Amino acid sequence: MKIQIKQNILIEHLNYVIKGISTKNLRPILNCIKFELTDDGLYLMSTDNEISIKTFIDKKEIDKIDACGEIVVSGRYIYDIIRKLPDELITIEEVMDAKIYINTKNSSFTLNCNDPAEFPDLELEYRKKPILLNQKVFKTIINQTAFATSTGESRPVLTGINFKIENNQMECTATDSYRLAIKKIELNEKAEENSNIIIPTKNLNELVKLMDEDDENIEIHIFNNKAIFKFSTISMMTRLISGTYPDTSKLVPAEFLLTMQTSLMDFYNAIDRASLLTNESDKNTIKFETNDEQVIISSNIPEIGNVEEKIMVKKNNQENIKIAFNSKFMMDAVRVLDSSEIELLFNGEFKPIIIKNPESDDLIQLILPIRTY
Amino acid sequence: MKIQIKQNILIEHLNYVIKGISTKNLRPILNCIKFELTDDGLYLMSTDNEISIKTFIDKKEIDKIDACGEIVVSGRYIYDIIRKLPDELITIEEVMDAKIYINTKNSSFTLNCNDPAEFPDLELEYRKKPILLNQKVFKTIINQTAFATSTGESRPVLTGINFKIENNQMECTATDSYRLAIKKIELNEKAEENSNIIIPTKNLNELVKLMDEDDENIEIHIFNNKAIFKFSTISMMTRLISGTYPDTSKLVPAEFLLTMQTSLMDFYNAIDRASLLTNESDKNTIKFETNDEQVIISSNIPEIGNVEEKIMVKKNNQENIKIAFNSKFMMDAVRVLDSSEIELLFNGEFKPIIIKNPESDDLIQLILPIRTY
Repeated sequence: MKIQIKQNILIEHLNYVIKGISTKNLRPILNCIKFELTDDGLYLMSTDNEISIKTFIDKKEIDKIDACGEIVVSGRYIYDIIRKLPDELITIEEVMDAKIYINTKNSSFTLNCNDPAEFPDLELEYRKKPILLNQKVFKTIINQTAFATSTGESRPVLTGINFKIENNQMECTATDSYRLAIKKIELNEKAEENSNIIIPTKNLNELVKLMDEDDENIEIHIFNNKAIFKFSTISMMTRLISGTYPDTSKLVPAEFLLTMQTSLMDFYNAIDRASLLTNESDKNTIKFETNDEQVIISSNIPEIGNVEEKIMVKKNNQENIKIAFNSKFMMDAVRVLDSSEIELLFNGEFKPIIIKNPESDDLIQLILPIRTY
Repeated sequence: MKIQIKQNILIEHLNYVIKGISTKNLRPILNCIKFELTDDGLYLMSTDNEISIKTFIDKKEIDKIDACGEIVVSGRYIYDIIRKLPDELITIEEVMDAKIYINTKNSSFTLNCNDPAEFPDLELEYRKKPILLNQKVFKTIINQTAFATSTGESRPVLTGINFKIENNQMECTATDSYRLAIKKIELNEKAEENSNIIIPTKNLNELVKLMDEDDENIEIHIFNNKAIFKFSTISMMTRLISGTYPDTSKLVPAEFLLTMQTSLMDFYNAIDRASLLTNESDKNTIKFETNDEQVIISSNIPEIGNVEEKIMVKKNNQENIKIAFNSKFMMDAVRVLDSSEIELLFNGEFKPIIIKNPESDDLIQLILPIRTY
């Protein structure tokens, strides 16, 4: 393999594949990046068996392809070297004894390589009719649900986001069993077949980091045990979590005893301040109590002090409510709502609280109350 | 005590005193901020006995002084509360049972207080004729020397910066015994008396964080066991390190076998890249070898690979040198030089290397070589 390529182009693509490098370091080959140089251009690949990333640099963006071939080289070293080289022409050449030379005008690196035959298969494959979604919409889905995922490992299915696709409806659900986020999306086209899969949230967070601000579509190719995302020059494979995702469809009631509307910023800031006088060990409990159109939000740490915050709300009836909840969960839920007003829906002090945009049911946030009274 | 003050003014000053709060938490009173409200204005104070910080808000900046008095309250809580309150008028009022109320239009906090009598003396005092330095110059001194301080505790005197003041000369020295930074400053006025003190580097770093971009002077008041820095509305006291600072005056030779000049950026970047193929465990050793006007900088990690970087230099004679040094130390030394060209001075492969601006001796950086050849 021998190639001449500009530093800024190569580093852009190394920036993608470096995110697929294993940090656990169990098999050295999983710390490597594979370069596959063909007459069409250069493929860069990385995998830790949980996720795989592949990107392509078209021959038009390459100064010279002297000899096609494959090399497998330490990802961390090649990434840091290319990143620190000046923005000039770089020559990478495979030489005897499983080594490569990396040269610019004033710098000469020699790096030891691994055997390309040992590099794992990326398991990339594509469906004829993938699901299509706008990249920004996809990022929003992850942003609005991922935080509600469980971080504990006791129930592995809860460490992922459930994607349920039926005809042209996609429903994305995350829960840690104390709170729940459900986002509904209408697809432009009916899906080829219905799916119900769980994708690890940490892999989705990596995927989102690979995306730029483009309005371009992302293709989602769903298989039995993996999903492949394709956009721009990139393909990313993630394994799925096996198991059955809990049925959350009956958790969100259709009717409520009391609904109210208030300013998102006022509500968020009041909760944020009340949260200062709560403890992690006490589930960050704050109390919420209506008195006509006024709400008192309060909390205390006996040895430190207490706080009362007032906000005004518009209610749909004369009912009042006294309820307590985890302030951090409420802030997480409110923060991702994309509206200036929010709607809070209640069925009594021991029933889940629903938080949403008053003008849309596309995103439903649910929080279980805490029993204190 | 009762005061009405705008949030933005109070938080600006809490931002100063919060930096004096102990994080070690041994005596709860050291986690507190003292408010002292007088007819002239409000003093805010914090101390962990190692450093003390005091700032003053003039009565012109206060909306209403209802009752003078003193309170001592948890620094972390009052800081977070004031920070998260909206930019409106805040009332702080001392009430029965050692409590304060903090009120805005919609927020009411109650915080428990400590006994002001238990709050330690800040030990602030001032000399009639302090040393005066421009704030920017002071920041530069710390930036150009602090990194060379020892971080280990085996020789406490090396964890500080030595300030030696003689007449109108100030010399600031830092060393970890492998490298040395010496900065010389000419004072505008002759000092009242000569001093030779060691100030803990971590306290100087805190002090620099308190400074803004002002061109205003800083006053340095030196005492037997402490130094007090006064600027803007702020006074900061730091303890001194007791002990004798090593005599470094003979470490920098007056004559050299070989001096050379090169571009700072080219040299820094070459070292930075060569440093990629070094190990911490191996003292980040890189080799430096001249061949006429060309320098080869090289390093290797046997199992990974090797690197050779070329730079061009202008030498003062035909001598050549082959020497090895810690690449991280060299980068630290070069990074703080404020010039486009640097001068490197050598007396042979086992003798210290001097790095400086070719046009000035105000800042001298010295690095011991590593024996490898």
